[in-house]
Amino acid sequence: MRIPDFTPPHRLLLGPGPSQVHPRVLRAMSLPVIGHLDPSFLSLMNDVQEMLRTVFQTTNPFTIAVSGTGSAGMEASIVNVIEPGDAVIVGVNGVFGTRLASVVDRCGGKAVRLDAPWGQSIDPNAVEQALRRSGPVKAVVVVQAETSTGVWQPLDTLAMLCREHDALFIVDAVTSLGGLPVEVDRHGIDICYSGTQKCLSCPPGLSPMTISTRALAAIRHRRTPCQSWYLDMGLIADYWQEGTRAYHHTAPISMLYALREALRLVDEEGLTQRIARHRLNSEALTAGLAELGLHPLPQPRERLTTLHCVLVPPAIPEAEIRHDLLSRYGIEIGGGLGPLKGKVWRIGLMGESSTESNVLTFLNALEELSIRGGWLDTPGLALAAAARIFSRGIS
Amino acid sequence: MRIPDFTPPHRLLLGPGPSQVHPRVLRAMSLPVIGHLDPSFLSLMNDVQEMLRTVFQTTNPFTIAVSGTGSAGMEASIVNVIEPGDAVIVGVNGVFGTRLASVVDRCGGKAVRLDAPWGQSIDPNAVEQALRRSGPVKAVVVVQAETSTGVWQPLDTLAMLCREHDALFIVDAVTSLGGLPVEVDRHGIDICYSGTQKCLSCPPGLSPMTISTRALAAIRHRRTPCQSWYLDMGLIADYWQEGTRAYHHTAPISMLYALREALRLVDEEGLTQRIARHRLNSEALTAGLAELGLHPLPQPRERLTTLHCVLVPPAIPEAEIRHDLLSRYGIEIGGGLGPLKGKVWRIGLMGESSTESNVLTFLNALEELSIRGGWLDTPGLALAAAARIFSRGIS
Repeated sequence: MRIPDFTPPHRLLLGPGPSQVHPRVLRAMSLPVIGHLDPSFLSLMNDVQEMLRTVFQTTNPFTIAVSGTGSAGMEASIVNVIEPGDAVIVGVNGVFGTRLASVVDRCGGKAVRLDAPWGQSIDPNAVEQALRRSGPVKAVVVVQAETSTGVWQPLDTLAMLCREHDALFIVDAVTSLGGLPVEVDRHGIDICYSGTQKCLSCPPGLSPMTISTRALAAIRHRRTPCQSWYLDMGLIADYWQEGTRAYHHTAPISMLYALREALRLVDEEGLTQRIARHRLNSEALTAGLAELGLHPLPQPRERLTTLHCVLVPPAIPEAEIRHDLLSRYGIEIGGGLGPLKGKVWRIGLMGESSTESNVLTFLNALEELSIRGGWLDTPGLALAAAARIFSRGIS
Repeated sequence: MRIPDFTPPHRLLLGPGPSQVHPRVLRAMSLPVIGHLDPSFLSLMNDVQEMLRTVFQTTNPFTIAVSGTGSAGMEASIVNVIEPGDAVIVGVNGVFGTRLASVVDRCGGKAVRLDAPWGQSIDPNAVEQALRRSGPVKAVVVVQAETSTGVWQPLDTLAMLCREHDALFIVDAVTSLGGLPVEVDRHGIDICYSGTQKCLSCPPGLSPMTISTRALAAIRHRRTPCQSWYLDMGLIADYWQEGTRAYHHTAPISMLYALREALRLVDEEGLTQRIARHRLNSEALTAGLAELGLHPLPQPRERLTTLHCVLVPPAIPEAEIRHDLLSRYGIEIGGGLGPLKGKVWRIGLMGESSTESNVLTFLNALEELSIRGGWLDTPGLALAAAARIFSRGIS
C-alpha cells in the first residue's frame, strides 16, 4: 500500500509559531536548488546578511542564519563563547530561560539561575546583585520575548550592567525579531539569535544570529575548542565570509531562498511600520479578549505584542476549546507549557499572522464557542472592542 | 535600493551534492505551513519514519530526520553515545572521517584514528588490531561512502568485529542512502545517518538517522547528560514517538514535506531498481571518462556508484574546466578537498541527477572543452563508450 499524496489541512496559524507564510515565500521555496558554493548562491547569502542586519539593527559583519531552528541558535550562542567553568547568569522566567540554563550546564558552564515567577520579567536589580556576588561572569543571558509566558524583557539596564561588569550580553529574540524592536547595536547586545518561523513569517528551519566584534574575539581566543563542530561559529564564519567561502556544511539552500524572500517582505513594509502593525493588532486582540474575560498573564508594561499569553478562567474547558478552534475553524493557538499547562492560551499574532482580519476571525470563533459553551450571552462584544481599537489606531 | 527578486540560474547538479530535485519535491516545499503539533503533521512524521525504515533497510522504531544537515546527523550520532573518556575507533580516509575524529575529540571521547590513504578503504584487519590493542572501545565509526574520495567502504567484516568486541557500529551513509545498499539490520549497524541532498534528491537541511535498540539503551543509560540539547536524541525521541509527542524544538515543517515526497519517489521507483539505475549510469560515466583519460581514484572494487572521484591529469587545467562547465554549460561538478585539491574532480550521479541524459550531457560538454583545450582530437568517443554501456546494461 503506497503512502498517498499529502495535502495540508487549511489552517490559520495563531499559535506560538510557526506563523502564516506569505505566498511569495512559499514560491521561493519551490525554486530549483543550486549548489552551496555556486556564485549565485554566495551572492544570495550576502543579500540575506544585509537584510538581517537591518532587522537586528546592527552593523555586525557576522550576521548570518544558523542551519537549524531557533534552539540551534540558542545552543550556538552559548557553546561558542562559554568554556568549562565559566559562570553565566541566566534569567529563568519560562521555558526558554530554563532551556538556556540547561544548555549552559551541558557545555560545562556554571549557570547562575536568576528565577522570576513565570509571567514576570527578570529584575535588573537581581542581575546586578548576582554580578557583584558571583565573581567574574562570562555572560548574562536573557530572553527578550518569552514565548511560554508572553513576557517582554526590558534590556536597557541589563545592557549597561553587562558593560560595567565586562560580561557578554546574550539575548534570545526568537519571538521578537521582525515584530518588536531588537536593537542590537544600541543595546550593545553581543550575541542575539532568533527563529525564522515567528515574526519573520518564514518556515521553521533557520536561526538568524548576529555576533559582536567583542564576542567574536572571545570565540577566537577560546582556550578549548568549541564542543560542537556543527555549530562552531569560528568555522562557519569562513563559509559566510566574502573572500574565504570555505566549505563547512551544505547550507540549507531552499530555506535560505525562503528567508531572503521573507526579509524582502519585511524590507518592503518597513521595520517601523511592521512593529506598529504588530502593536495595533495586539491591542485590538487584547481588548477583544478582555470582553471574554481573558486577561494577559503579564503586567501591561511587560506584554509582548507578538505572542499573547492569557489566563483561561477555570470555568472554560481549556483543551476542549483549543481542540474545537482547530477542528471546527482550522485555527491553531497554543496551550500552556510546564506550570502553565491547562491554565493559559498562547495566541500569536506574528508576521503574516498579525492582521486585522485574523484578529476578527479568531475573536468571532472564540465568541461562537463561548456562546455555545454557555459562558457568554451577547455575541459581538469582543469584535466591537477590537473594531474600536482599529478605528482609533495605536494608543 | 531594494534587493531584487531572485531567480536561480539554470544548473545541472553533478557535484558532490546537492543533487537535482524532482519537481514534485519542489512543489511539496511550497505547500502551506502547518503547526509542528498539528495532528496532520504528526501523521506526516509517521509516514516519513515508515519510508525511512525502508531505505535504511531496518525495523528500528527510532528512525527519524534530524533537524540539520548531514553534519548535524554526524554530530548527533557521536555526542549521544560517546561520553568523556570513551575510546572510539575512527576510520580516517577522507574529509568526513577526519571530521568524525574531530567530533569525537570535541565531545571528550578518545578518537583512535585508523588512517588510510585518501582513495582507499579502511582495512578490517587494522580495525581488528585496534580493537584488540585499545582496551574497551565504545564504538567503531566508518564512512560507507566517502564523498571526498569516492571510496566505498565494505561493512561486513567490520560489523562482525563490532559485535565480537561489544562496540557500537556507527556508519556515515550520507552519500549512499537511496543510491547504494545501506543494510542497517543485516549489518547490525547501531547508528546510521545520512543527508537529504544526495541520493534522496531532496533539498539539503535534514539528516535521516536510525538508531538500534542497543544504541538507544546506551543513550538511556548515560552517566552524563548529552552535551547537546538540540541534538539530544533522548529528548527528541519523545517528540517523534507516537503517544508522547512532547514539544522539543519546532520541526522544519516544509523540509519534512519535501522529504516525504522524495521518499515517495524512492518508493515508487523501488529501492532495488534505484540502486541498479545508479550502477548503470555510473558504469557509463566511468567508461566515458576513461576515453578522456580520466580514471577513478579508488580501485574498481571500492568505487561508489553515486560519487565519482577521478584523477585529473596535470595537463588539464582543473579549476578552469570546472569553471567553464559551470559558466558555459550550467553544469556543476566538484573539485578536490584537502590533499586532493586541484588533483581530482568529483562527479555526482545521485538520485534525480543519475540519468542517461545527464551522463551524455556531461560527457559531451567535457569532450567539447577537451577539444577546445587541445588535449582531445576526436569528438564522440566518450559518448559512444557510455552508449555501449547503456545498450548492454549493468555488467
